[in-house]
Amino acid sequence: MFISFEGMDGSGKTTQVNLAADYLRKRGYEVLLTREPGGTTVGDRIRAILMDKETEQLNPRAELLLFNASRAQLVDEVIRPHLARGGVVICDRYIDSSIAYQGYGHGIDLQYVIDAVTIATDGLLPELTVYLDITPEEGLKRRASASLFGEEFTRIDAMALEYHQRVYRGYLEIGQSQPERWLRVDAAQPPEQVHKDVLKALKQHLPARKPRTRST
Amino acid sequence: MFISFEGMDGSGKTTQVNLAADYLRKRGYEVLLTREPGGTTVGDRIRAILMDKETEQLNPRAELLLFNASRAQLVDEVIRPHLARGGVVICDRYIDSSIAYQGYGHGIDLQYVIDAVTIATDGLLPELTVYLDITPEEGLKRRASASLFGEEFTRIDAMALEYHQRVYRGYLEIGQSQPERWLRVDAAQPPEQVHKDVLKALKQHLPARKPRTRST
Repeated sequence: MFISFEGMDGSGKTTQVNLAADYLRKRGYEVLLTREPGGTTVGDRIRAILMDKETEQLNPRAELLLFNASRAQLVDEVIRPHLARGGVVICDRYIDSSIAYQGYGHGIDLQYVIDAVTIATDGLLPELTVYLDITPEEGLKRRASASLFGEEFTRIDAMALEYHQRVYRGYLEIGQSQPERWLRVDAAQPPEQVHKDVLKALKQHLPARKPRTRST
Repeated sequence: MFISFEGMDGSGKTTQVNLAADYLRKRGYEVLLTREPGGTTVGDRIRAILMDKETEQLNPRAELLLFNASRAQLVDEVIRPHLARGGVVICDRYIDSSIAYQGYGHGIDLQYVIDAVTIATDGLLPELTVYLDITPEEGLKRRASASLFGEEFTRIDAMALEYHQRVYRGYLEIGQSQPERWLRVDAAQPPEQVHKDVLKALKQHLPARKPRTRST
């Protein structure tokens, strides 16, 4: 099973991804947790370029292609092999981030974004996407506050509010166009409640599995 | 005017690109010389990933997207602005390298390659492509010999001969399918003769220009 988590920065994705992974591991699933961009040696080098605040002059199409280069490496090196072994993959950001951030955020032709994503994934889509819904205003507020406590404030955090608002609209439109895999969770709630909402959906989607005690 | 140079490694591209640029500069053209991958700050960081012999596990689609990320940055940051100022751009490798190396060499679906190239260039094609024709066997021999004299022997040089043979076939097929912009030069000749053959073609394609003495 392949699950992606999406949402604005500051939506609590990292917390929720970890809680969901813990839950599934306790139930005996082999869970692989990964994040975009990065998750491989090559991907981490690409991530360093993308997240560097000094990379100011990066143009949107180059950004799109870099994110998808990292993704192509992640799909082939990490995600597909783990799925082939029967494991669960949870990905912190996946294709919808490209569509929301590069397509809607930067205004790149959506066909370019879809083509880039298709090359990167070679057709591998998540079965469930958990969308942590938080307004851009609230997300940025949380990020700014987290950065006071040592979290990195990245090049993408530093973009103008209008950019984040376009990204937010992008997420809303993706959810409307692909409701069958899209689970919206209100991320303004306390983390424990968000987690409960996430679990409700996960339980409906969980595949049958051999418990670990039988397979080992 | 936008000219690209293509050919296998070891075909003498660097030498010929420099000779052509010198010739055009002496005739008063504002020549910008650039190379792929690289040519921008971001592009040079991408180049470092691509050329690193340690990046063995790089998958072909990730490689395709990285080359094109570097290209997207180069097109917007360097090539288009120089063309807009009326200058001549000479590019050491451009889109045909993606088609030959990633498409034919690695066997990536050609539609993926064409889509990636389209995103990167946003439609900007060279008016003339000088193809320095040398067999893969001869090219590799020259590269191996150059590496004894301090030239970097890269991850791509280290690929098997069969790979380079597929690349070579790719170049032949591109030339056949786009004869109007394709100038094949026999690169097994002495460099001076290759240069003469290149100039013959350049002279036919040179745009009318205001000589530098009038414009300054």
